[in-house]
Amino acid sequence: MPGFFDLATDAVLKQSAPVPEHFQEVKGVDYSKPESRNARASDLIDSMKTMGFQGSSLAKACEIIDEMRTWRGKHISELAEHERKGEFDENGYQKTTIFMGYTSNLISSGLRDTLRFLVQHKMVSAIVASAGGIEEDLIKCLAPTYMGDFALPGKQLRDDGMNRIGNLIVPNDNYCKFEEWIVPVLDKMLEEQEASAAKNGSNALDADVPFWTPSKVIDRLGKEINDESSVLYWAHKNQIPIFCPALTDGSIGDMLFFHTFKASPKQLRIDIVQDIRRINSLSMEASRAGMLILGGGLIKHHICNACLMRNGADYAVYINTGQEFDGSDAGARPDEAVSWGKIKADAKSVKVFADVSLVLPLIVAATFAKE
Amino acid sequence: MPGFFDLATDAVLKQSAPVPEHFQEVKGVDYSKPESRNARASDLIDSMKTMGFQGSSLAKACEIIDEMRTWRGKHISELAEHERKGEFDENGYQKTTIFMGYTSNLISSGLRDTLRFLVQHKMVSAIVASAGGIEEDLIKCLAPTYMGDFALPGKQLRDDGMNRIGNLIVPNDNYCKFEEWIVPVLDKMLEEQEASAAKNGSNALDADVPFWTPSKVIDRLGKEINDESSVLYWAHKNQIPIFCPALTDGSIGDMLFFHTFKASPKQLRIDIVQDIRRINSLSMEASRAGMLILGGGLIKHHICNACLMRNGADYAVYINTGQEFDGSDAGARPDEAVSWGKIKADAKSVKVFADVSLVLPLIVAATFAKE
Amino acid sequence: MPGFFDLATDAVLKQSAPVPEHFQEVKGVDYSKPESRNARASDLIDSMKTMGFQGSSLAKACEIIDEMRTWRGKHISELAEHERKGEFDENGYQKTTIFMGYTSNLISSGLRDTLRFLVQHKMVSAIVASAGGIEEDLIKCLAPTYMGDFALPGKQLRDDGMNRIGNLIVPNDNYCKFEEWIVPVLDKMLEEQEASAAKNGSNALDADVPFWTPSKVIDRLGKEINDESSVLYWAHKNQIPIFCPALTDGSIGDMLFFHTFKASPKQLRIDIVQDIRRINSLSMEASRAGMLILGGGLIKHHICNACLMRNGADYAVYINTGQEFDGSDAGARPDEAVSWGKIKADAKSVKVFADVSLVLPLIVAATFAKE
Amino acid sequence: MPGFFDLATDAVLKQSAPVPEHFQEVKGVDYSKPESRNARASDLIDSMKTMGFQGSSLAKACEIIDEMRTWRGKHISELAEHERKGEFDENGYQKTTIFMGYTSNLISSGLRDTLRFLVQHKMVSAIVASAGGIEEDLIKCLAPTYMGDFALPGKQLRDDGMNRIGNLIVPNDNYCKFEEWIVPVLDKMLEEQEASAAKNGSNALDADVPFWTPSKVIDRLGKEINDESSVLYWAHKNQIPIFCPALTDGSIGDMLFFHTFKASPKQLRIDIVQDIRRINSLSMEASRAGMLILGGGLIKHHICNACLMRNGADYAVYINTGQEFDGSDAGARPDEAVSWGKIKADAKSVKVFADVSLVLPLIVAATFAKE
Repeated sequence: MPGFFDLATDAVLKQSAPVPEHFQEVKGVDYSKPESRNARASDLIDSMKTMGFQGSSLAKACEIIDEMRTWRGKHISELAEHERKGEFDENGYQKTTIFMGYTSNLISSGLRDTLRFLVQHKMVSAIVASAGGIEEDLIKCLAPTYMGDFALPGKQLRDDGMNRIGNLIVPNDNYCKFEEWIVPVLDKMLEEQEASAAKNGSNALDADVPFWTPSKVIDRLGKEINDESSVLYWAHKNQIPIFCPALTDGSIGDMLFFHTFKASPKQLRIDIVQDIRRINSLSMEASRAGMLILGGGLIKHHICNACLMRNGADYAVYINTGQEFDGSDAGARPDEAVSWGKIKADAKSVKVFADVSLVLPLIVAATFAKE
Repeated sequence: MPGFFDLATDAVLKQSAPVPEHFQEVKGVDYSKPESRNARASDLIDSMKTMGFQGSSLAKACEIIDEMRTWRGKHISELAEHERKGEFDENGYQKTTIFMGYTSNLISSGLRDTLRFLVQHKMVSAIVASAGGIEEDLIKCLAPTYMGDFALPGKQLRDDGMNRIGNLIVPNDNYCKFEEWIVPVLDKMLEEQEASAAKNGSNALDADVPFWTPSKVIDRLGKEINDESSVLYWAHKNQIPIFCPALTDGSIGDMLFFHTFKASPKQLRIDIVQDIRRINSLSMEASRAGMLILGGGLIKHHICNACLMRNGADYAVYINTGQEFDGSDAGARPDEAVSWGKIKADAKSVKVFADVSLVLPLIVAATFAKE
Repeated sequence: MPGFFDLATDAVLKQSAPVPEHFQEVKGVDYSKPESRNARASDLIDSMKTMGFQGSSLAKACEIIDEMRTWRGKHISELAEHERKGEFDENGYQKTTIFMGYTSNLISSGLRDTLRFLVQHKMVSAIVASAGGIEEDLIKCLAPTYMGDFALPGKQLRDDGMNRIGNLIVPNDNYCKFEEWIVPVLDKMLEEQEASAAKNGSNALDADVPFWTPSKVIDRLGKEINDESSVLYWAHKNQIPIFCPALTDGSIGDMLFFHTFKASPKQLRIDIVQDIRRINSLSMEASRAGMLILGGGLIKHHICNACLMRNGADYAVYINTGQEFDGSDAGARPDEAVSWGKIKADAKSVKVFADVSLVLPLIVAATFAKE
Repeated sequence: MPGFFDLATDAVLKQSAPVPEHFQEVKGVDYSKPESRNARASDLIDSMKTMGFQGSSLAKACEIIDEMRTWRGKHISELAEHERKGEFDENGYQKTTIFMGYTSNLISSGLRDTLRFLVQHKMVSAIVASAGGIEEDLIKCLAPTYMGDFALPGKQLRDDGMNRIGNLIVPNDNYCKFEEWIVPVLDKMLEEQEASAAKNGSNALDADVPFWTPSKVIDRLGKEINDESSVLYWAHKNQIPIFCPALTDGSIGDMLFFHTFKASPKQLRIDIVQDIRRINSLSMEASRAGMLILGGGLIKHHICNACLMRNGADYAVYINTGQEFDGSDAGARPDEAVSWGKIKADAKSVKVFADVSLVLPLIVAATFAKE
């Protein structure tokens, strides 16, 4: 049955075009090298470049991060007055404005120490977080979060006043402590607001009159907490703005809600318009812009949207577990952001499909904390 | 080798305890019944109750939705003055306050028509959406969104001014049209703000003085668009509040940003504190509270958090693709919300692991749009 | 700040190229039409074509299934002798050879009734299943599977002899009943093997001598079970081969293992070489080949690999929850199979990202069971 | 509104039961320690133990792996004759029988070097692989696999004879080379089969007569390839059996298919019954059994099923991206296997939700390759 047989062999044994010269062979860790034993982070990452699948994506993420954090442009003395914007290093050279976004759960996890390290050492320029990413940082200064289990039953936990976040447990007392801590701060903030309103009268809403915005509230909370374990403390100290337009979506919102009753008929007002101007301006002023997106949802979209204002980021690293098939922004690949002008067409970008807690310690060890 | 052999047979052929009487047999569609041919939505759902996996979760979601939408409590005449809160049906009986949350992409998809149907017919009580879930509804009144493909390359799309959302395409001209439409509206809103500031002077920030909040801005946009295809239009018409604390996180934010330059030194102020009071109050006043969560991220957390104010929702249906393993709120099962007091321990709840676009048409056909 | 401002407006308000004429508008269900109330499966699917995301993928899957099941080629009388291969309809016209693959869990779920319906009415041509997909079909003829819950704790279940499959429960007694049923069948099969060996002597292994293969064992089990609720029964009756190269990977394997001790020094031999020839030949003889892949893993790869023998399937519908990011075949999109020649470059193909139990009832209602 | 207000404060500020003493605080990497800079694998893993989410699962996986690989039982001299089964270390002490499973794509990736390292140094006792996990190891001895991209279009690749596996590329010429290499091996194997049949006559199928099984074929291929870069080579050398019941599901299957035409009327027969006896016996004889499951599908189920024969494994580490919501075995958590008796109720087990290529290099560096 020759003809019959040919159909299959032609299909199975089809010849290839020549392999292009630039093709890279897949290779893994070479365990005959001594440095592959109990390997250092950067050696491990190096040997993962030609691993394939997410292993090589992880290595690429490290490569892009190293490029974005070490890029240097012109010296400030070479720039005209109106060009002296964006970030500069200690020696006066332009560097990348790095926008880092993270979701609430990362602060609940042990990654808080990693995020704080980056902020403490001014390794990022601006942050976008979800509300829990603000309050859980403060609450951890008041009382700890504990290891738990994904399968602990909710009813029993509620009876015991133990709140579950994945495989973590936050005793509800922590929120009681938070309330005690924050109420006097809110009182002071309201006083200041009222003083400004009294002083400025019908111009109290003008652009140049001090007005509470989420980033200003967060900066104030960072100042008040005054604790070196805190991300907010170091952000305040290093003047790294933290944006969180939906600041009311969590425990701070609960406290603000209670405060509206306490303060009535006065009320704190937190304006989100001034903050969108602030973050967009940061993006536009940046010499180069890099995105380090840890998680999905608002924190991802908000940074991407800010980078549209400059016609695209120059570097983008996404790390999350979202999938694109449901059309969510959370799951969208960097190439979707290219279509919108949020990432430049020639930018270096990668998405690592992973829970951040699994890979960020290794990534930071191999990049920001290499030296 | 008898002893050796016993090890395996004892393990493999271990006897069961008697099957409890309440156990339900797994069964599927009975195709010998005529109604199983080209089946109606509700017949299909009925036969999926004992399907297992997500099939039975889908059927359970429909069961819970039917229960939350048809529950009736006391007649208003039986209630004391201070108890006359929450939702009532046309005949004066208490009914469930249904909080529906959806992400931006659902409005971009054909599900917008389904969501509008629910709002038009007052089938839900309050909505939480992400920013894109507001603006894309308005933009679709100005120009259409098109079918595309997940694999279209970003660079070519950007060159053509075509923005990709999953497998959909929004021409960038749509955003230009949106800008033309919204600028005069923002101008009027600023005028009104300034009039209020002038009138109220140093009390302009007080709780009882009109002040723009995201829900009020959205209501105004719904009024201005004046288009029966719009979710916002019907929400305005039926006085169903739409909450969106991060309203600036998208095209409306871009327009507000541009507007700050145009209006300088005046500036629109949008306050998020008053809205958290509004949504929390809705939850506390509800006779019963139901959650219909379509997607993850902020829209999920915000509704759950509001329901904590009443010590838990009575019904909860989650539909999304999030996974719990990364500790994200998006992926948390209803039982995690039970630990927080966001869902009552004895509430009926289910999570359907699915892209909403895949299942909501069937769910609505079998529940809200059954009759 | 005009120049500064231009950067953002140019990026945000970039003009689009004209929308190509063939672009389809995104639209959803029109609830003003009476047929959208408690909609029929096919009406629902029709209105999902322009839904976007997986909603439109589902509609496309139905379109492809309808095309593959209704395609007709030449009449057998128009064909030369050696061309009279593949499938023909009752009137003698060529039709598509449909390969359906499903994983074990689908048979455990209520989908078994749907799969049986397809086999009973000869709507598919060949099947690939995993081992559990064989034995669970037989076991369900002996005792039921029950509804359970994903969160039932394993230790308690083991103590009670209750095995969990997702949210289903199979009492371990069911496997005891299965053992009682299958032992005499295995005895007979061994007898027949020995008779053939005795008869054929040193030629007992030749290609044309009867020899047990997984597909032959399965056919025999289908004959022996003699139960109209069974997929295997109808597959035997309708001579639809079921392939399962790893037939030993489950309860049948346990029973075969026990049988090797019982039968010693004789032993059943089940050859997998003859089955690969059988399935590949089916693919090569097909006038057109369609794939209906329900799940991932072996059952997906095996059908794709068989279709490589004909230089690609003409139609392909994948339904599973696998993701491509880990490079698994389970998660590979149809376009990966195109690169291998397993799906023709011009074939109609789609992947629906969904748990099969969620969508197959609707799909079958709108296609195979429409009339 | 005191009563109204109380509802919310009671819910939000509910007091907790005292925190149990055994609760562990969530903590992350302490960057003030010098070892956290460019950290070594084991230091990184140590600091991830209290990370939460998958970070702590990864650390737990390493802990379990270290426990399973270092456990030692009695000395062989303390055991009665019939107890001298399972694995022993060089000094004669009982050690864990480690079953490692991996899917085909891992061999295509750079992980092949890691897997080979484990086999070369006898760190695992038995392997279950899918068919591609066999042939791709051999093919890589003949020609390389290359780095590619998930988004490369299938049609162009097929035209060029380039096969895509996720973000890897295998030139089709590699399969042509494989065919050339394997045909003479298959010829020899058939000769040997025929010699045995001739010698044993009607007893040729008996249990104690040599007969090809997947594990024997694989061992032979490992011997023939004779290449130190190969997993199969070292498995042959170290007498570590590799099981692959569906050996025909891939390129070897294609070659066997072609060989049936070439060899007709003779035909190779590969029996899967003897292999199920072999793997089950290994499990039953083990002093302790450990599972290291890399991926899902058959390779996971097959090892679990073997461990049922001993009433459960003592250690289990799963690493894959499967989700439980669809009821697939691939996505089932270890606790599901506990209900079946495949993992002991008191065993140490964990599932890491990750692409294996992302975490295995780190895991192996911190465990098997620590010293």
